[in-house]
Parts: sequence; structure tokens; C-alpha cells
Amino acid sequence: MAIPAPDLPPSPIVPSIDLQADGVRHGHLRLPYSRDDSAWGSVMIPICVIANGEGPTALLTGANHGDEYEGPIALYELARTLRPQDVTGRVIILPAMNYPAFEAGTRTSPIDKGNLNRSFPGRPDGTPTQKIADYVTRALVPLADVVLDFHSGGKTLDFVPFAAAHRLPDGRQEAACKAAVEAFGAPYSMTMLEIDAVGMFDTTVEEMGKVFVTTELAGGGTASARTVEIARRGVNDLLVHAGVMRGAVERRETRWLDMPSGDCFAFSEEAGLVAFRVDLGEPVREGDVLAEISPISRTGAAPFTVRAAMDGILAARHFPGLVKPGDCVAVTAQIVG
Amino acid sequence: MAIPAPDLPPSPIVPSIDLQADGVRHGHLRLPYSRDDSAWGSVMIPICVIANGEGPTALLTGANHGDEYEGPIALYELARTLRPQDVTGRVIILPAMNYPAFEAGTRTSPIDKGNLNRSFPGRPDGTPTQKIADYVTRALVPLADVVLDFHSGGKTLDFVPFAAAHRLPDGRQEAACKAAVEAFGAPYSMTMLEIDAVGMFDTTVEEMGKVFVTTELAGGGTASARTVEIARRGVNDLLVHAGVMRGAVERRETRWLDMPSGDCFAFSEEAGLVAFRVDLGEPVREGDVLAEISPISRTGAAPFTVRAAMDGILAARHFPGLVKPGDCVAVTAQIVG
Amino acid sequence: MAIPAPDLPPSPIVPSIDLQADGVRHGHLRLPYSRDDSAWGSVMIPICVIANGEGPTALLTGANHGDEYEGPIALYELARTLRPQDVTGRVIILPAMNYPAFEAGTRTSPIDKGNLNRSFPGRPDGTPTQKIADYVTRALVPLADVVLDFHSGGKTLDFVPFAAAHRLPDGRQEAACKAAVEAFGAPYSMTMLEIDAVGMFDTTVEEMGKVFVTTELAGGGTASARTVEIARRGVNDLLVHAGVMRGAVERRETRWLDMPSGDCFAFSEEAGLVAFRVDLGEPVREGDVLAEISPISRTGAAPFTVRAAMDGILAARHFPGLVKPGDCVAVTAQIVG
Amino acid sequence: MAIPAPDLPPSPIVPSIDLQADGVRHGHLRLPYSRDDSAWGSVMIPICVIANGEGPTALLTGANHGDEYEGPIALYELARTLRPQDVTGRVIILPAMNYPAFEAGTRTSPIDKGNLNRSFPGRPDGTPTQKIADYVTRALVPLADVVLDFHSGGKTLDFVPFAAAHRLPDGRQEAACKAAVEAFGAPYSMTMLEIDAVGMFDTTVEEMGKVFVTTELAGGGTASARTVEIARRGVNDLLVHAGVMRGAVERRETRWLDMPSGDCFAFSEEAGLVAFRVDLGEPVREGDVLAEISPISRTGAAPFTVRAAMDGILAARHFPGLVKPGDCVAVTAQIVG
Amino acid sequence: MAIPAPDLPPSPIVPSIDLQADGVRHGHLRLPYSRDDSAWGSVMIPICVIANGEGPTALLTGANHGDEYEGPIALYELARTLRPQDVTGRVIILPAMNYPAFEAGTRTSPIDKGNLNRSFPGRPDGTPTQKIADYVTRALVPLADVVLDFHSGGKTLDFVPFAAAHRLPDGRQEAACKAAVEAFGAPYSMTMLEIDAVGMFDTTVEEMGKVFVTTELAGGGTASARTVEIARRGVNDLLVHAGVMRGAVERRETRWLDMPSGDCFAFSEEAGLVAFRVDLGEPVREGDVLAEISPISRTGAAPFTVRAAMDGILAARHFPGLVKPGDCVAVTAQIVG
Amino acid sequence: MAIPAPDLPPSPIVPSIDLQADGVRHGHLRLPYSRDDSAWGSVMIPICVIANGEGPTALLTGANHGDEYEGPIALYELARTLRPQDVTGRVIILPAMNYPAFEAGTRTSPIDKGNLNRSFPGRPDGTPTQKIADYVTRALVPLADVVLDFHSGGKTLDFVPFAAAHRLPDGRQEAACKAAVEAFGAPYSMTMLEIDAVGMFDTTVEEMGKVFVTTELAGGGTASARTVEIARRGVNDLLVHAGVMRGAVERRETRWLDMPSGDCFAFSEEAGLVAFRVDLGEPVREGDVLAEISPISRTGAAPFTVRAAMDGILAARHFPGLVKPGDCVAVTAQIVG
Repeated sequence: MAIPAPDLPPSPIVPSIDLQADGVRHGHLRLPYSRDDSAWGSVMIPICVIANGEGPTALLTGANHGDEYEGPIALYELARTLRPQDVTGRVIILPAMNYPAFEAGTRTSPIDKGNLNRSFPGRPDGTPTQKIADYVTRALVPLADVVLDFHSGGKTLDFVPFAAAHRLPDGRQEAACKAAVEAFGAPYSMTMLEIDAVGMFDTTVEEMGKVFVTTELAGGGTASARTVEIARRGVNDLLVHAGVMRGAVERRETRWLDMPSGDCFAFSEEAGLVAFRVDLGEPVREGDVLAEISPISRTGAAPFTVRAAMDGILAARHFPGLVKPGDCVAVTAQIVG
Repeated sequence: MAIPAPDLPPSPIVPSIDLQADGVRHGHLRLPYSRDDSAWGSVMIPICVIANGEGPTALLTGANHGDEYEGPIALYELARTLRPQDVTGRVIILPAMNYPAFEAGTRTSPIDKGNLNRSFPGRPDGTPTQKIADYVTRALVPLADVVLDFHSGGKTLDFVPFAAAHRLPDGRQEAACKAAVEAFGAPYSMTMLEIDAVGMFDTTVEEMGKVFVTTELAGGGTASARTVEIARRGVNDLLVHAGVMRGAVERRETRWLDMPSGDCFAFSEEAGLVAFRVDLGEPVREGDVLAEISPISRTGAAPFTVRAAMDGILAARHFPGLVKPGDCVAVTAQIVG
Repeated sequence: MAIPAPDLPPSPIVPSIDLQADGVRHGHLRLPYSRDDSAWGSVMIPICVIANGEGPTALLTGANHGDEYEGPIALYELARTLRPQDVTGRVIILPAMNYPAFEAGTRTSPIDKGNLNRSFPGRPDGTPTQKIADYVTRALVPLADVVLDFHSGGKTLDFVPFAAAHRLPDGRQEAACKAAVEAFGAPYSMTMLEIDAVGMFDTTVEEMGKVFVTTELAGGGTASARTVEIARRGVNDLLVHAGVMRGAVERRETRWLDMPSGDCFAFSEEAGLVAFRVDLGEPVREGDVLAEISPISRTGAAPFTVRAAMDGILAARHFPGLVKPGDCVAVTAQIVG
Repeated sequence: MAIPAPDLPPSPIVPSIDLQADGVRHGHLRLPYSRDDSAWGSVMIPICVIANGEGPTALLTGANHGDEYEGPIALYELARTLRPQDVTGRVIILPAMNYPAFEAGTRTSPIDKGNLNRSFPGRPDGTPTQKIADYVTRALVPLADVVLDFHSGGKTLDFVPFAAAHRLPDGRQEAACKAAVEAFGAPYSMTMLEIDAVGMFDTTVEEMGKVFVTTELAGGGTASARTVEIARRGVNDLLVHAGVMRGAVERRETRWLDMPSGDCFAFSEEAGLVAFRVDLGEPVREGDVLAEISPISRTGAAPFTVRAAMDGILAARHFPGLVKPGDCVAVTAQIVG
Repeated sequence: MAIPAPDLPPSPIVPSIDLQADGVRHGHLRLPYSRDDSAWGSVMIPICVIANGEGPTALLTGANHGDEYEGPIALYELARTLRPQDVTGRVIILPAMNYPAFEAGTRTSPIDKGNLNRSFPGRPDGTPTQKIADYVTRALVPLADVVLDFHSGGKTLDFVPFAAAHRLPDGRQEAACKAAVEAFGAPYSMTMLEIDAVGMFDTTVEEMGKVFVTTELAGGGTASARTVEIARRGVNDLLVHAGVMRGAVERRETRWLDMPSGDCFAFSEEAGLVAFRVDLGEPVREGDVLAEISPISRTGAAPFTVRAAMDGILAARHFPGLVKPGDCVAVTAQIVG
Repeated sequence: MAIPAPDLPPSPIVPSIDLQADGVRHGHLRLPYSRDDSAWGSVMIPICVIANGEGPTALLTGANHGDEYEGPIALYELARTLRPQDVTGRVIILPAMNYPAFEAGTRTSPIDKGNLNRSFPGRPDGTPTQKIADYVTRALVPLADVVLDFHSGGKTLDFVPFAAAHRLPDGRQEAACKAAVEAFGAPYSMTMLEIDAVGMFDTTVEEMGKVFVTTELAGGGTASARTVEIARRGVNDLLVHAGVMRGAVERRETRWLDMPSGDCFAFSEEAGLVAFRVDLGEPVREGDVLAEISPISRTGAAPFTVRAAMDGILAARHFPGLVKPGDCVAVTAQIVG
């Protein structure tokens, strides 16, 4: 169950700005954090609110994982440039939701090793990562009509750029989410069936009945001008689509993909040096060699071969040059649109 | 002075294979390394020799820096597939020259933090990294007529793919090196003027009078099918060009670049989140914004701007999403061919 | 709820001495702790009991946080020098309650990063820190009539020296605690309103109905002859006041302070080098500059200013020369007595 | 209560092989483990099943603690050599149950510091170590009639070699376990009364009504040819005894020992250099000096003496040359058979 | 020999500002530093030059040790506020000379563990710390007439506040240094006889014939308003004294101290909890107990006593609450003025 | 060249006791060591001198490597028990020569990773480990007639117990050393030909013309009552043999071994779990399987086999259960006496 229990104690997190008043406010969520190097220290999570009269609220989050950059770049920029007069309603921007992880450039928090996207709905008396999840769940998501949570592959994965929605029990909600994905207008759009949805922000927001869009916009722990532009345009058009910004959605071509089953994932059973035979976005057929994993301790040894289990395109891949046993090496996705 | 002193003690490194006899031999350079977790341990560096009668010798090295992958992938493959009958003379392959760094996936050695490419000509009684440099310098380079040392950008830099030669005092040697670079046939070819050539393998090999080719073939701590193919074809055609393999060099188009002065490097004075405005290979003009560095501790703050100091293309860039003060953010190169 | 649940399993901690018999006994609380470097190891927490016939019991604890020294110095000394004939009743001394933290000189335990004073009432099947909290709560506090828990600022805070009591729902208990604080006779006495009382030893002991005194006696991870003397005299007079030692309380002048609201705390939003404009104990008026925080990465940049939000004295300050965002830089207290 | 709750969510662990079909299958239990260095990584725990028609099932586990070697050596060997035609029923082999700990050569898991043998019955939504415990408890133990869990002393303890059973409430089950211990045929057999049985695999399996055998076969983080031979023969004869392999149990002489109370354990109160006066297996009498602990910071200081509290033999000892306060230095066992 | 050899290669350090031109310039010394997390990274050391026509040059340095704060606070402030019109000649300010150590808040550099004040005259091809020493020695000291190097006790020592000069072979130079110390006007002035002057900045500067002043202004890894004021006034009056600033030296009372021999240092032979019996600045007589060191592993044990070996005052002390064997616990200085 | 240069600066190490006077003195060698956690700290190396009139001097050293225990146990005991009246001449005991390594229980020093036995003759201005080597070489060895340096296998090797001498250019010196080895009377005596003698204490002492005995007395990072007894008797009889103690050498049977060439060492090329087929001291014939190394990442894979290259006994073996590529797995020695 991803919705928080009703009788939890209050969150220790205190915002330094008013989340309700009109205008632009830059501030922090202050999370008290007593530790060896600061007995009365705090984690300071940047937050920005741009509000203007009546209208819907959009909650925009980046750095759910701390090594994913297209979202934070687009959101720090938006917070710096969006003017109240451009807005009808409210935009709440959390460009670096798991700030300790973002500051460290790591997927998980260096404080408690917490993976924020496996920590929802969170706990007010748990680890710092769980406290962030709890505050977002109980204090921010209820304010929102639409939630956009940016992801990319991080330091160890790389993706073809897509926005995504999940299959949901409520058909109307699913349709609204997919329409929002279309508005985002990434080169690819994905109908995602999560392998393990326990603890995800996605599930929590969706169970609270909100329109939810997530993304995977490249990866490797970097961002290019091209992929940042996808994020920048995507958030802009989503805000227009949601009625928070004026104007018309600039329709861009998107190609729908599907991950129909666990067969789309290919894992390595061996450690070694990975040589891909196919690059991201290229077509593959069932049985094709996607990559070879060579042992490194000696020359002359035969590699371990990773093959596609279905037709489609190479939609995601392991990024670092070395692979460990159990790593997901490649993801094949079907083209459906 | 990059050439080793004449009166050094013998190297402690022992090869497990005969470097002279004909045929294919896979083995190791064993470097004794006494440490807390193995009093009588060793570092085992894979080596392969493929020899067939009289002819020139090529020395091929990868993983001079441990997080650069196109070279090692091409070289482990070559060691697995090259047959003696394909060779006239000898090919010595060291696919993972700084093996401890390569195994750890790091630029420098986790054993002694040694940057192998700043450790030449090395010392037989120094750190493990210095011992590797010394053995290569005194035992392997003298056997070679041509040396190819593969580099890519590693985890923190990314490059347009090129092979490179240096400006050398001996014009004939420089011309021979450039001809070898042409034969390698990467999309780009670079005339490199190193900022700091002290301790480099390049300098040592060149001062010993050999034909020397180096490369930068993308980066980010990964390799794509496309960039590995550049490495694979490049080493093949270089061996043909050098007369070690039979056949004709397959001429591919290459574009010559130049790094005329230190102005090609742009450094950041601030820490922050880097948003590139230009991608690798795109044209830039003097004064263009290459990237913006935003502070991350709060929203709403103005970014620090990095500009091009000359016309050319964006030839290299900082890879991770976060930048520290003093990091080289971008390299502009002039198009000369 | 700070009182332990009634159906908990027994504590794994075993005392090596009899806590009931008359005389002086020095021993340990042995807490089994299986770990990589000792499969059947234990944490050994020093304990001393000095008992003599009928009378009240005082429980004296130091190093609740491991980097606070006035209390432990006074208590090791007391354990070495107090004779049974000086006592009527019993004194239980735990000079280093979180012994692993004390041995490491750190606020929290190096074993499990546990902050003991956020771990009460503890768990018998939790982390080592939680096991200590549970044993103290269930085995020691019930034996006590009065509990004195020594604190100082530790490595990252510094205080004017005071003993303190909390506002309590039971007026009689609060008055008894304040009378004990007066008897302690530190230069200052504080009516403390804790910002976050969840998990504190204080709350647990107070909810169990005991007379409870805590202190803050300077800080910085050190102790001076002067501040140790305050601790030494304070514990002596408190024992006399409680009827555990004979004699008369030596009345020393004390000045009552109050922390009326969260406004007494001033936090930094920036990282930098902190220059205080006021020293501990000096008077301040609302709006006064308490400190300036300068960025360190370049000269010539303007500092961030920290100001007092009320009239009073500077009662506590951040100790290290560098500050991080979110650190509490200064505490202003009102003079009420 | 060591039996799992009935309403737990499903385990995230997926076996790569069919646990039911006849024949020999080598594979892995794949445990998804998202982390900084592999966002979609997994822990891969080797598993082997050898099955042949109807008959009982034996579950054989090694490396419950990752630095204990006789069991893993015997079990990797058995998995490599046992043929289906040798089996009636099924043998399930988990030679390295806490694989992350085994790979690191440490008692506990380097991932989460989990001691697997204090983590039963486990949790499907807990740490990786708890997930392993849960899967073994809910997916493997129910398949088994007899369970053999190999232990040795690991890096910090050393034992005389024995197999062991516990005193159990069900006399019939205890007798069956002891008969299995006899069949194992180690030089010693122990009736063990665990000091702290909470969280142990032993307790969970016994409460599920299975025949359970554990061992302690030397230690020090190594294995000798002699002690591996005890493991090899023991598992063979236990499988014959259980009816899973054909043939007759080769009866070897075993000597029954007993650990009647906590007095069998001797702890050090001091840190220092330990000099044993008695070696493993040698007879001791109550009051004998077992070991002396010398302070190391200066010469000339008197040692701390550790004495036997009962007659018997030295059955176990602290292994490393240095001792910390609270370490168990020696275990005396009574000879009863 | 503390003066650099004449034939060294050039320094790799590049200043970003002109050190010669008039006016105020804020910039950096950029030290190239290739490492795993930035292949083409640099260390950026802040520098400020304020110059105005002809006149003497003062070189002012802070954070020679990275955890000493009075100097850096006064120097960042001076760099922010000093105007060219206040100057006759030139002031070169390096407020954080060992910047990596200063940023980390540690005595030595986290990069190479280098103690800058044991690294002079440095090496251009050594570690980053040695490169800083070399640049300061060869590029900055030769420009200076007077050098002021700020020290305090850092995290592990505390001092009565003093400026100091050394006994020098050249009586005229010694007199000039002492006159500068008088001008600085700290509460105490010290004639220092260094125990180990090898590698010190002091020795290098003095051997180059400059007027040199050093300080010890409290410690503990912090700074108070009072001790910063000593630094602020001291540097101001020294600049006036040296003729770089206009105005008159504001004479403040100072008391001259002497450290006549190694007997002034008292070391601990034991580890433990240190209780001082005397505070800084208090008078002591030969044989007085300065401090007691108590063992912490048990109560009731006798402490180790540290006594004064001469009459004088307690001039310095170990700061942290715990002491290790070999730590200098206390320094007694003789009053000579 | 292992003898120190004549023009070195003086050692910074200061002994706290007089090395010349008669009687028993326990003290320390104090080595100044400035570091982040103690600016004026020192390393304190225990030393004991027992002297009585005219006669030869024996220098006895333990913990040259910090994880070898028979020597330190015997030497702390000897220092505690040997009386001046038992001595003719002088015994200098350094039971923990590399004290930082000994205190940490590691082969090398945790301070500087220095392997003391590869650091001779040392440097007075080098690392702490080099400073220890220099002091022993220049201040202690010249005082000695005979030097006994205790070794065992440490945490990663195990040996049959032997004392050893080296082949030396001076036949008379070699014979004197062998006679001393005989007097030591270990179960085995070895004529050792070191693989790599550079930097060893042995070489330095032998080149200074002294009688030198070294040992290998078991290993694994522990000591048994039996092997400590070998050390205890050995040092006693060596002192008698050398004329420093009165009495007669108690002749014990010893078996001479030889390590005739590098073939006695067997290395692993693979990582894995090691299963020895032969135990220490057992006879082996050329070609015998000594051990099998199994891969651990899956069951069912064939092991790598380690074989004997000559007839003899298994004289030493790798101790931990896991092996890395390049580890010495086994040493075969020839029986010659």
C-alpha cells in the first residue's frame, strides 16, 4: 500500500517559504539532521514556487535519483526564468528532490544509502531519505493536480529518450496520464509495466489519483544539449497541456514503445568487459547478439553472449564499460506506435 | 628527459610467456606486490604475442588509463582472433596496461593512485604503476617499430573520435607518425600539442624514435558499437600500414583538427550543474556560450558562463553533470583539413 | 510515547557486577556484538555502583554523546574517589553511556551511527545503540530517584555553562527538577523547551516520573579546568541535595535563562568561513550581527550575515571554523533571573 | 517466533533453474539489488539441484557466514561431481548462501552488514541479507526433509571439528537430529545450547519440524586438507543416512561434547596480545590458565589472565593474535561420550 | 637546506591575475590536478593583489594548516576591504595557502596527506602540496619584503595568543623580525626555538633574508570574535610598520615569552581521558600537575599524571578530550618580558 | 646497497631510556608524527634493555610485519621476566618494531602503508616506516653482535616452523649464522635464498657483518601454545649460544630444508576458493596436486589445479580460503638434513 497511514506524527521538515501566496519564492525545505560533523545541522532542499491566482497546481521534481541530470537542468532553469504572469495557478519546483544524493552525484543518498524511489510513501521518523518521501507525499502531492518526475539512466544506464505512463486500474486516469505523456512530446513515449513498483513515487502519486508523467531521457551521469532541450520543451508543453501556462502545445512526433514482459530485460551471468554490437535505438530481432562480455583476467578466453529475446529496438543499456554478474545489460522494447 | 637511465636495477616483472617465439601465446606479466591481504601476492597483467617469422613489431596498448574502453575491447578481440598466418613479424598486445586501474574501472591505479601516463619512463624500485612504466619502457618498447596507445575520455571527459600525432623535433619521424594516423582512419585526426608532456608514454616512445599513434575515441567510461568499430578498423589498418598484416589499408575519410594554443581549453571557476549549449562536433565561433554552470544550493541564482575563445568545433567536454572549480569544461579545436 | 512497551523480550546486556549490594563495585555492562572482526565479541560499558544502606538512588550518566567531556571527567573521578561511607543509599555511575561513541570521540556510535539521545526508549533486539537505550530505560532508570545526564556542546557546538530542566505537564515534578538544577549551581540555569524531544533520554526519564537534570557545559570536543570544576561541584551538590551524600549544598550564584521559541536558533543558508562578531555570554539585541559567513572559493565576495532575532545573550554557537548550509550558527537566550 | 508470518508479500528473488525437474541443473538465485554502481543490478547466488525420481530432499548450505570454508569447498565439489544416478530424491545445494559475504571473505554481508544467521526468518521487503533469509525460509526449507548448514569458526574463532544438534522440545525430533549428527561422523559431536538463538537459521528450520545438522569444523578463515575431508565424508554419509544416496554409512569414531552453561565461555576484559597456554582439544581443569592477555603499549606490564571455569577440553578459541575487551577468548566443553 | 635548487623545471601553477599591475585583483592560482573524478581538473587557490605605485611588498598567508581560522578570517576580510589608495607598494594575500586542506577543514591536504609546513621549499614535479610550496617559494616570496604567515593551534592544539620570531644567525634580521612582532601587538610575543625546523615555510623565508612573522592565535579548529580581532589589528599594524599602509602603529601591550628547551613540552605515554588542572595562561611551577590522563575502559583505575618541568605559564595544550600515547599534552613557556 | 649513506641528517627518533646503563629499563622510542588528529603527536615504540656488565649485545625484534605473533609474544614475555643477573652483556628487545602495524594487526603500517621489511636501510626524513628502519639501522644494529628478527606467515601465509639463515658471500659469517640457527632449535631449519632481498632488514644486518637469524613460525595471524613455545625456547637458547645468557643450549632435533630455486613457489593464475590436497609438512612429489582453485560465481565449473614442481614437503601455503590471481598458493621445500 503506497498511501501513507493516517495517524503519522508530523514531519520534522520546515519550508522556509510560503507555498500558498502568489508571486515567485525561492527557498528551502529544512530537514533537521544531527550528525557527527554538525550536532544541530540540517539538510537544505531547494524549492521554488511560482503562483498566480486560481488554477491547477503542477509539481515538478528532479533528482529523485541523484545522478540524473536533464530534469534538474531544465527545472533550475525554469525556476530562474518562469514569471508569475506566465502562470495560471501554481508551479511547485523541486529540482533536486533527493538533494544529498544530487550534491554527491550518486543514485542513492550518501547519508543513509536510501534510494528515494524505493522509499515512498516514507516515514516522518525514519531516515533522512524516508523523511523526504514522507514530506513530499503528505505535504506536496496533495496540493498537485499533475506531477512530473524526471528520470534519466544515471551513471550506470542509458536510454533512448522517452516520457512514460503506467497501465493503471482506472482507465480514465491512465488515459489522462497518456495524454500528458503525448503533450510532453519526447522522441519516444513508453507504456511502462514496472518490474517492481513497491516504494516508487510513481505508485504513490498514481494511487492518490493524480495525473503522473515520468521520463527516461538518456543517461550515463551526464546530459547533452539535445537531451536537455527535450526536457525543457517537454515540461513547457506539459504545463500548457495542464492549463498552468497559457499557449498551445507544440506537437512533436513521438513513437510509442511497449515493455510487454520481463523478457525485455537481458542480464549478464558473468563479470567482464562489455562490447555492444547494437547501439541505442537500433532495431533488433529475437536472437540477435546485443553484446558480448569478455573476461579480463587473461587474453584468448571466449566471451559470454547476450541476445535479444524479442523483436524491437535497443531501448536501454548498461553504461559502464565493465559488467558484474546480475547486471541488466540491455532492454529491448517493442514498437507499438 | 623521458628515456630511462642506463644503470637501473633489473625489473621485478616476469613474463609467463616467451616474447620471441612464433605462434600465439596468451600469458601474464607478473609483478610481485606484497600487501596486507596477500603477503606474497602479485599483479597479473594480461599479455598476448602473435608472431610469424621476420618482420616489424607492433606494440598495441590499452587501458593506459583504466576507465577508457574502445582500445581494450578492440585489443582483447584482436588477441582472441588474430592468427599467426595473418602476421608478418610480431604483434605484442597489452590490452590492459595499467591492469589494477582497468579492473577497478578508474583512471588511476587503486593500489598507489598512480596515473600511468604521468609515470614514464618509470622506476623498477618504485610504486607498482612506476614498475609497469619501467618494464614497458625497457623491455617492450625497444622491441617495437610502431606503437599504438589507445585512449578515450574516461569517466570524466568525452571527445569527438580521433587518432593523433604530436609535433616532433624530427620532421621525418613526425611525418611517419602522421601517415600512421591517416592509416588508422578515425573520423577526425588531430595534431596535438600537449599541455604537459612530462611523464607521458607518448613522449617516452617518441624520444626512443618509434612511430607512435595515440587516440581519443569518445569517453564517459563506456563504449558504443560505433566507436568500438572505429578502434577495430583503426588497429587493423594500422597493422597493414606498418607491414605487420597483409592487405591494403581501407581509406576512410578523416578530418584534420588542430589545438593551436592553451586558449582551446575552457575552465570553470565555479562548482555547479553544467548545461551545455553545444554538443560534441558542432561548430562554434569565438564568444559563443559553450555551457552554463548553475549553483545547486538554491534556485533563482545566476549561472556562470563558459565561452569559446576561438572558432572551431566542440572537440571535447567535461562529462559528469556536476562541475568543480578548476575542471576543464570544454575544448575547442580548429578545423585544418 | 517514550515509555517502553510492556511485552519486550529480555535485554541481551549482562552486568558483571551486582547492582544491589553495599560497597564499591567497578565492572561492565557486557553487550554481545557479533561482527567481522570478532564473531563472539561484546561492547563493554564501564559501570560503577557505590551503595551504603537505605536511601535514595542517583543515576549519573556521561557521554550520552561521545564527544562531550566535562561529565565523563567528573564521573570517572567520582567513581574513583567516592567512598561508601560518604553515601546514604546508592550512586550508579555510567561515565560513558554510549561507550563506542566515547571511545571514538564522536557524537554518534561508530558501530551503527546511532545518536543515543534520539534512540530512547530503545529496543532489546535493535542496534547496539538501541540496546543500550533499552537497558538503561528498563534496568537502571527504575532503580533511580534522581537522574543527572551530562551534556556539553561536543565537537560542533559551544555553550555558556548551564544546567537545565524542562517545562513539564506535572508542575510538582517540574519544580523538583528546577530545585535540583538550582542545587547543581552552574553559572547559568536554563528552562529548556526542546525543539525535538522524540527519542530523548530526558523525555523517557521525565515520563517515568523521576527528577531529571541535564547540562550543557561548554563544548568544542574538549574540557577546561574551569568547566570540569563546574561539573565536579555540580554533581557533588546535587547528590547532597538529593540526600545521597551528607552535608550542605554550597550555594553558588546562577543566572536563569529561557529559550522561549524557535526564534532563538539562527541557521545558515550558505557554506563558508564563519566570523563571529559576538562571543559566548555577551549581550545581543534583536537585529545585531552575530556572525558573517564568507564564501571561501574566491576573495572579494560578500558574506552572508546572521542576525539575532531577539534580545538576550549569545548562549550557544557553531564551533568549527567552517559552516555548511543548514547548520545552526547561533542560539540567543533570554535572561530571566 | 522464528516461523514467517503467513501474509508476507512475494519474494523478489527469482531462481534461474527449475527446482523440481530431474537431472543436474546449475544456476542462480537472482536477487534484484539497485545501487550506485548498478541501477538495475542483482546479487547472483549460485544454486545446484540434483534430482532423480521419488525420495527425500536434502538442503545443503554453506557460507551462512562468509568466511567459513570447509562447507563451501565440500559443496562446490559435490555439485560438480554428484550424478543423478547416485541420488534417490533430491539434493539442493547452496554452497554460498550469503554470497556477498562469501565473495568478500567476511562474516557479514558487505552490502548491509547483515549477519545472515541473525536474520531468520527474514523479510521479502528488507535488506538483501533479510531477503535471502526469507527466500530460503519460505521457498527452500519447505521442500526439505533434512537440512545441513555448514559452519566453521571464521576469521576470528577456531574450533575442534564437530557436528552438532540442539536440545529441542520435541524429543523425537531431537533424537532424529542426533542420529544425523552421528551419521555425519565428525571427530567430535556436540549437544549445543545456544546462548542467543534469536534470528538463527537453526531455530527456524527446527521450528519447521525438519531434521537439522550444523557443524563447526576448525576456523581462522581457512581450511586444511584434513578438515575439508571431514566435511566431504560427513555430507556423503549424511545423505546416505537420509536415504538420498545409496550405500552404507561409514561409521567413524566421534566423541560427544556438551556445553552445559554460560560458564563455558571466557571473555577478556582487556585489550592486548593473547598467549594461549593450552591448544585446541587439550584437556583443562577448572582454574587452569587458558591464556594471558598482555598490554602492548609498553614492556614490563603484567598480563590479564583467563582461566577455565570447568573441567573439559579447550573446544574453541579466539583466533587473531590481538584481543579486544569483550571478546570471547576461550570455550571449554565437557566430554560426555 | 631550505632554499630551492637553481635548476628546477618551471612550476605548473598558473595565476589567473597579473601580480604586478596597480589596483585590486581577485583571482586564483590554478594547479593542474588530474584525478579519477576529473581527468583534466585543477586545484584553484584564491589570491588577491592590492597594489599602488612604488613601495614595499607584503606577502600575507593563511591556512598553511587547513584547520586554523583567525588568519583566513582576517585575510578574506582584508582582501574584501583594503583599497588601493590605502596602500603604498603592494599587498599579496593568500588567505588559504593550502586550499585543499582548508576546504576540508584538516591540518594536512586530503589529496596527498601533505603537511604544507613540512614541505618547503617544495618541488614543481612533486605532490600538489609540494607544488604549492614550490610556487610560493620561487614565485611569491622573492617579490616580498615582509612575510606574515598566520597559524593557530588547529583542531588538536590550543595556545595563548602570540606572534613570534625565531632566533636567527643574522642578528640584524632577527631584530627586524622582532620589531615586526612587536608591531603586530598580540597579547603575547614569543621567541621561538623550533623543535624541528626542517621543511618549514618559516625557515625558507628567513633563509631568503626576509622579515618574517608567524603567529599562534588560540586553536581548537575555531575562532572567537576576540582572537579574530587580534589577527585583524595585528595585520593592520604590521602593514603600517612595514610602510605598506599609512598611519601609525597602535601600540598594544604584549608580554614576551620564551621556550628555552625541549623541557617545555610534556608528552603522554598513555591513552585516555585528559583532565587539565590548569587553564591556558595560568601560572605554573616546576612539578605542578598540569593534567591527569585516565584510562577509559574501566572505572576505578589510577590516572597518569603530567607535570610541569619548569616555572612559567601554560602556553599551549592538547585540545581534544581524549589523548593518545605520544601526544604533546602541554607546553610551558617562561615569561621574559 | 643496504648500508646507510654516511651523510644523512640525524634521526628524529628519541629513546626515553638510556640504552647503555646496567639494569632493566622499559621505555619507548618516540617518533614525532604530526597528523590531522594530533598536530604534535608521536609514534611510541616499546623498547626494553636488560644489561649487566661486559659482554656481547643481542638485538631481538618482533613485528617487523604487524600480523606475526610468535615473536612478539615471546619477546614481551622475555622483557617482563629476564633479570639482569641472568645476563652477561646486553639484550635489547623491540617486541613490536613496526608498532603502528602491530597495533593495527596488519602486515604493513596503516600510517603510510609501509612494509618495514622492504624499507631498509631507511631514511631519517622519509615516511614513519622509513624513519623506524633508519633508526634501527643506524642506532641499534651497530650496538649488536647478534640479531634475531622474528617472522611468521602473518594473516595470509602459513609455514612449517623454522629458523633460517641465508647464503652469504662470506663463508665464515654464513657458518656463524647457521650455527645460531641450529642453536635456536626450531623443528625445521632453512637455508633461504630470498627471491627479492632489496630493502630487507636481513640484508642490511648481514651486510653490516652481524650474526643474523630469522624465523617463520607458522602463521595465519595467530599463534598457538605450541608455536609460541618454539619461539620462547629458541630465543633462550640463542642467547645462551651467543654468550649473553649463562647455561647450556638445550639441543632439539631440527630438520634442514632448502629452497633451491624459484620453482619452489607455485602461483595461481585464477581467483577462487582454494582446496588444499596436502597439509603443511606432508611429503609431495613433483607433479602432485597441491591445491585446486574453484571459481565461486557458479557451481559445476572445473577448478584450476596447482601442482608441485619438485619433490619435498609442503613448507608454506596461502592461508585465506579465497585466492586472487598472482597469489603464491604453495611453497615446496627440499629436505636436505
